Amino acid sequence: MTHQELLRLSLVQAQALIAGKEVTPLELVDAYLSRIEETEAKFRSFAEVYADAARSSARALTEMQAAGRFLGPLHGIPVSLKDNINVKGLRTTACSQVYRDNYPTEDAVVVRRLKAAGAVIIGKTVMHEFAQGATTDSPMFGAAHNPWDPARFCCGSSGGSAASVANATSLASLGTDTGGSIRLPSGVCGLVGMRPTIGRVSLNGIVPLAWSLDACGPITRSIRDNALMLGVLAGEEPGDPSTAKRPGDDFSRTIDRGVKGLRIGILPEVLFQKDQPAVVAAVQRALETFRSLGAEIVKCRVNRLELMPKAWSAVCYVEATSFHQKNLRTCPLDYGDDVRVLFQAGEFISGTTYVHAQRYRRWLREQFRTLFREQVDLLLFPTLPFTAVPIGDYELIIHGVKENVLPLSGTYVCYAPTTGLPALTLPCGLDERGLPVGLQLLGDAFREDVCYQAGAAFESVFHLYDRLPGIRPESCC
Amino acid sequence: MTHQELLRLSLVQAQALIAGKEVTPLELVDAYLSRIEETEAKFRSFAEVYADAARSSARALTEMQAAGRFLGPLHGIPVSLKDNINVKGLRTTACSQVYRDNYPTEDAVVVRRLKAAGAVIIGKTVMHEFAQGATTDSPMFGAAHNPWDPARFCCGSSGGSAASVANATSLASLGTDTGGSIRLPSGVCGLVGMRPTIGRVSLNGIVPLAWSLDACGPITRSIRDNALMLGVLAGEEPGDPSTAKRPGDDFSRTIDRGVKGLRIGILPEVLFQKDQPAVVAAVQRALETFRSLGAEIVKCRVNRLELMPKAWSAVCYVEATSFHQKNLRTCPLDYGDDVRVLFQAGEFISGTTYVHAQRYRRWLREQFRTLFREQVDLLLFPTLPFTAVPIGDYELIIHGVKENVLPLSGTYVCYAPTTGLPALTLPCGLDERGLPVGLQLLGDAFREDVCYQAGAAFESVFHLYDRLPGIRPESCC
Repeated sequence: MTHQELLRLSLVQAQALIAGKEVTPLELVDAYLSRIEETEAKFRSFAEVYADAARSSARALTEMQAAGRFLGPLHGIPVSLKDNINVKGLRTTACSQVYRDNYPTEDAVVVRRLKAAGAVIIGKTVMHEFAQGATTDSPMFGAAHNPWDPARFCCGSSGGSAASVANATSLASLGTDTGGSIRLPSGVCGLVGMRPTIGRVSLNGIVPLAWSLDACGPITRSIRDNALMLGVLAGEEPGDPSTAKRPGDDFSRTIDRGVKGLRIGILPEVLFQKDQPAVVAAVQRALETFRSLGAEIVKCRVNRLELMPKAWSAVCYVEATSFHQKNLRTCPLDYGDDVRVLFQAGEFISGTTYVHAQRYRRWLREQFRTLFREQVDLLLFPTLPFTAVPIGDYELIIHGVKENVLPLSGTYVCYAPTTGLPALTLPCGLDERGLPVGLQLLGDAFREDVCYQAGAAFESVFHLYDRLPGIRPESCC
Repeated sequence: MTHQELLRLSLVQAQALIAGKEVTPLELVDAYLSRIEETEAKFRSFAEVYADAARSSARALTEMQAAGRFLGPLHGIPVSLKDNINVKGLRTTACSQVYRDNYPTEDAVVVRRLKAAGAVIIGKTVMHEFAQGATTDSPMFGAAHNPWDPARFCCGSSGGSAASVANATSLASLGTDTGGSIRLPSGVCGLVGMRPTIGRVSLNGIVPLAWSLDACGPITRSIRDNALMLGVLAGEEPGDPSTAKRPGDDFSRTIDRGVKGLRIGILPEVLFQKDQPAVVAAVQRALETFRSLGAEIVKCRVNRLELMPKAWSAVCYVEATSFHQKNLRTCPLDYGDDVRVLFQAGEFISGTTYVHAQRYRRWLREQFRTLFREQVDLLLFPTLPFTAVPIGDYELIIHGVKENVLPLSGTYVCYAPTTGLPALTLPCGLDERGLPVGLQLLGDAFREDVCYQAGAAFESVFHLYDRLPGIRPESCC
């Protein structure tokens, strides 16, 4: 197989070919390392590439398999990690000067699980500093460039992870999501991204942004690839009391159930308030697609949603500031200006505001869970109201009104972290420039299976994975 | 049986005699109502006495039994409630003018369970305003007087509950405990009080002080009475997600196991720093008693205990202030001066301080749970470092040094709420004035059974229940 053919394989296909000994881990990883060498200067997805280590690891996995030992579902699969996820002995910077000398002594739980399943960690991807930052640029490594148009951003904060998957410099990546940071870059890069239920995936060994909002999940080219990855990551972790006492499910098993009879809810009162026409059109087509596949579309209502952004931000900044308090005092100038101000401002939020916000979150979660119990199986939203903007642009015009990119990007991604419920993003169309539009499916607690089930049904009608920049025939540099 | 004989019955004895039809609910409740009439003016344990309702209820339970229906283990037992626990249609004041017109429309979960088990709610007991208050007096109803010496306090905040049980104006009472409010009054009144594990007993329908610290539990004359009461109260409540997913245990079943081989830990570094000599002597005798009964006494250590009072108070006042914020703005003068100042000051505690305090609590809980996993079955402390002081006295001299009653009272009761673990108080001696000294047993999460098991073994050697003021022959007014 040529490099180009190897890069075109989905994770599920690559896994099957490796298991069948038609492709070796070394061949596959070599193809990815070559692609990184060829394109990284242009796209800047990586904070660090572990070329030698990945090659040795792929060689060892190849020999291991020849000796009859197959580690697991990711045997030989090149995976990248957002640079806030610890790998023993290697630097984790969270793209901040504050962590320039941070060499963790243990693997994060998710890394241990990836390695145990046979994954090859190919590198660390760039991110917004500490998964935060008001700019679209990382002060330490610069901004990730969107493979669909290198002049445009990848949104954030897991921008490098999404860029790398879309550019075929890794076959899957792990991101983290506190207020949309897995789903936003997946959305603007035409990928599938899962933010799992809080408690589903252990966060031990990941640099936190806000403990009670954070989640870690996979970014992939397809729904099936994503379900396979989550199956490896999910499940109770004995040393981590914040993980839920339930085993990791095999999310691939139920993925073909289709959507016949599935009730998909929308919230008309919050839908399409400030969305680009191309986003509205693509999401409306998606609703039609679901209906034609046998799903029922149900109009729903949830009270007091207008408090959500304030509650989310009170919790996020109090927790982030608590985590950074010591460093903000000892080395404030090591933070980017925007991040330092955001974190310092967190000191002014009172304890009572934080408690009110946490109580609102619990109340809101109950409203959503009641909706899932009584009316719907999923809720459908756009992922974000617009497609990728040029790097450095902080404003865009929607319906003739100037809007700020940053608050606007949070419009639909805030629901999952505020309530702790899972949400999947998948591509549902392209805008007039050929940039991807994202669709989001929010599920009930621990019902990632239902998100995948509906996502797979939709993907059978519409997908972008053979049009991703990294694997289009013309993309060869 | 005479009233005096009826009042002398323990809950367990009364239950057996009612079940055996040797005593009727009406006879028992009549004896208690007469005792209230005779003594209430002097002791002021009650915010309200439901004489008519209790008598009708006792009559109905008597008739019900005659018709062959026996409700449960509390059939006909007169129980009082701290006045922050809702009874449908009756006033809950939390001893504050703020709630002078507060008539809840639902029973608290604990009240529903008491009623279902056949209990007769005889009245609401006085408490510190909103379970808080720096004074030993309640602005709405005055201070509860200690039945052992009416010039002395009952500590707080469930002072009226303890006074009423010690004075035989109820056979058992429910208190709440945020920083010691069940165990302190039980301790100074020579009673048995249980603060259960957080999550063991539902708090729905109870006026909160601080959500993440509060617990509700029984105050009784004996260990067996207490275990029986907790068995009725405990267990998952479907509508209350904060209750733990475990059934209520039958705590009486394992109560006779003794302490042979049981490892009872002490923390020498914090023990007896500022304790009255009589407390030190009684607790040391108790250690000897446990040793002679076959327990092993183990010296332990826990790091960073010095942060505990600050962490507890940051959490308590942020949550209390959140709850009262609206009323503090609309009717500040309805609060007692001391309570208003405490709650208003909670506004100045930052979100980051609150988060640090909550994280310290989780960390401390893990230290204790490790101790329970590896070294001991229980930890032993005094309940408070002194015996009942005169009402209105805020200072006392210990080892020649003037100490403030209020912070000192928290010395040993802070462990349970800060960690969420259960603690039982029981009497272990009398001081030179004949006032009771309390002993405290802290258990691992959901191991109230072990507390009761050790408490029952100790009680077989030392107890005060036939010397309680309300049932001593000479106490008849």
